[in-house]
Amino acid sequence: ITSKLPNVGTTIFTQMSQLAAEVGAINLSQGFPDFPAPVALCEAVGKHIALGHNQYAPMTGLPALREQVASKVASFYGRSVSADSEVTITPGATEAIFCALQAVVRAGDEVIVLDPCYDSYEPSVELAGGRCVHVPLALPGFSIDWQRMTDALSPRTRMIILNSPHNPSGALISRAELDWLAALIRDRDIYLVSDEVYEHLVFDGVGHVSVLAHDELYARAFVVSSFGKTYHVTGWKTGYVVAPPALSAELRKVHQYVNFCGVTPLQWALADFMAAHPEHLAELPGFYQAKRDLFCDLLADSRFRFTRAAGTYFQLVDYSAIRPDLDDVAMSEWLTREHGVAAIPVSVFYREAPRDLRLVRFCFAKREETLRQAAEKLCAI
Amino acid sequence: ITSKLPNVGTTIFTQMSQLAAEVGAINLSQGFPDFPAPVALCEAVGKHIALGHNQYAPMTGLPALREQVASKVASFYGRSVSADSEVTITPGATEAIFCALQAVVRAGDEVIVLDPCYDSYEPSVELAGGRCVHVPLALPGFSIDWQRMTDALSPRTRMIILNSPHNPSGALISRAELDWLAALIRDRDIYLVSDEVYEHLVFDGVGHVSVLAHDELYARAFVVSSFGKTYHVTGWKTGYVVAPPALSAELRKVHQYVNFCGVTPLQWALADFMAAHPEHLAELPGFYQAKRDLFCDLLADSRFRFTRAAGTYFQLVDYSAIRPDLDDVAMSEWLTREHGVAAIPVSVFYREAPRDLRLVRFCFAKREETLRQAAEKLCAI
Ligand SMILES: CSCCC(=O)C(=O)O
Ligand SMILES: CSCCC(=O)C(=O)O
Repeated sequence: ITSKLPNVGTTIFTQMSQLAAEVGAINLSQGFPDFPAPVALCEAVGKHIALGHNQYAPMTGLPALREQVASKVASFYGRSVSADSEVTITPGATEAIFCALQAVVRAGDEVIVLDPCYDSYEPSVELAGGRCVHVPLALPGFSIDWQRMTDALSPRTRMIILNSPHNPSGALISRAELDWLAALIRDRDIYLVSDEVYEHLVFDGVGHVSVLAHDELYARAFVVSSFGKTYHVTGWKTGYVVAPPALSAELRKVHQYVNFCGVTPLQWALADFMAAHPEHLAELPGFYQAKRDLFCDLLADSRFRFTRAAGTYFQLVDYSAIRPDLDDVAMSEWLTREHGVAAIPVSVFYREAPRDLRLVRFCFAKREETLRQAAEKLCAI
Repeated sequence: ITSKLPNVGTTIFTQMSQLAAEVGAINLSQGFPDFPAPVALCEAVGKHIALGHNQYAPMTGLPALREQVASKVASFYGRSVSADSEVTITPGATEAIFCALQAVVRAGDEVIVLDPCYDSYEPSVELAGGRCVHVPLALPGFSIDWQRMTDALSPRTRMIILNSPHNPSGALISRAELDWLAALIRDRDIYLVSDEVYEHLVFDGVGHVSVLAHDELYARAFVVSSFGKTYHVTGWKTGYVVAPPALSAELRKVHQYVNFCGVTPLQWALADFMAAHPEHLAELPGFYQAKRDLFCDLLADSRFRFTRAAGTYFQLVDYSAIRPDLDDVAMSEWLTREHGVAAIPVSVFYREAPRDLRLVRFCFAKREETLRQAAEKLCAI
């Protein structure tokens, strides 16, 4: 068999998590919490399973959960969306992004991605017959380089994938940037995927700028989010897409045959929990900001250099004062094997990484004890 | 936006389930049980959630569950497969089929499907850039028509989708048919998807003929099954694929980016339950055969004509003695609205249904009481 994805190997997330397990390192590589999910959320699953909520959910998602998403969108972003025709529950944000791309991209289409970017974007575009055009974000702040963005546009550009808060850098898109983007694509037939899975992990009182709050962009956007990131249950693989009715209709046609529907008892539990615990969303930025600050305060004594992440649960660090001789892949391995802390290299998020990139990513979605132990090891280097 | 799937509407399963709910009919349309899942299985989910098994599973599936699948394959089909390189857990059989097709089918490829067939096959082939070639099964027994199968082969044929036990007819493929198929495609570059989601629902002591038990065909096959069908939890959306290492590797590349991984606590619970309750699989054929026989015995007093299903949890019935004037779509609606029992028309499983088809499908995965109530209504017509 000749591979349709010849360049795809095991993702870096799997590789590093496996290496961490193998050598007994503290795993700050793959992004997931090591602390428990809310007890009330966990208990709700057992309750709904016992109630017999174990058969197919509606293809578009449980109405109660779609309603919760719609009311969250209204209260956070001031947009009134129809739970019926604009919200779709998916088995994870990855599937949501895949379906959005499949719904729009055709053979020969180009999709602009902003490097560094999440590793599922490019293979998903390729499976739809499209081609990724990689536009590097401007360093050091990982902001959009408008000249390069403008140069990348072509008559074949069919989609642009945005990601804010940005994995791996934690950078945030601004309202002004959304306005510039809107102006840039105003008269073109271009759609957006806005990957906002870290929407509730935005720090320092700044507030997330969602495409949902931007009328002109929302009209052509698939806005994707994740219950896994927001409720500390990445292994529940439940996410959602908000998109205007015509786009939702096309996404649903694909989703209907890629997967059909999400997991029923998890959807019930999430709907119950969202209704009963609105404080969870209000408290989340503070909860994660405390973790970021603990980790960064501890790392202040290390030879790593960094700017605190503005969002996400990832912290980039520059290690050029420690091992400038190692590239970031070698550095991540060295940190894992020799110093017992697993990290993710940043170059793997690029098609063509800057040659002098000396950055690795740590996940701080961890218990205080884990962060203290990791920081101790990192400060000893 | 111009649709990439212009012919796709809401699936008949959603339509009929909605209509049944609307008019308060007994829902024998969409295939799912109305009785509880095993208590030990349900309780195991709560246990694993409480244990904190809520973060990403390995991309290929939980090792313990892959091991259970491998040992089941060994004991049922006499094949020793590697849990590591030949078994992949997926978020449902639909996603498994989608990923297998995406892994193999390229623009311009042809995929042979045997009509009537499940509605996800064709859109999944189309999204991969391929084209379905529809070969109708021979009536009345829904067996493979070898002349038409041979005629359908072309140099562009890249895959054949098999489905046994067959939805909607319940027909079973025989060992001789697998041998004929093997001979037919021996020197061609053709792969198989074998949709065996009803593998444990085979009646009258016949035994399921799996592609897993056929060396020559397995070498080029993706064999798909479903924990949802086997453990009465269709809403858990957990399935698996068994395929030789080279094919599994390609399927996993796609699965990695379509969805990444299945739901962690459900995989733990299924692994525990399979280990502790091997009798579930042994008892399943008898359990469902009793339901089939109850339903068919009761329907003996009706004006519907039928041959008992050999497998699956579906029973086809011929209604030409009752309303020969109605096509099967109209008949399904009439049964639902006027007689309070929802059914699925068979013609929707065809690209081009036989003109005189007077068949509808009932799902008998229901409690005795449900089947009795439905049969009473059906006998009164
Ligand atoms: C699906 S594994 C990747 C998790 C994640 O989002 C990350 O670590 O970047
Ligand atoms: C995913 S809904 C369809 C369920 C089913 O397999 C059927 O009713 O045929």
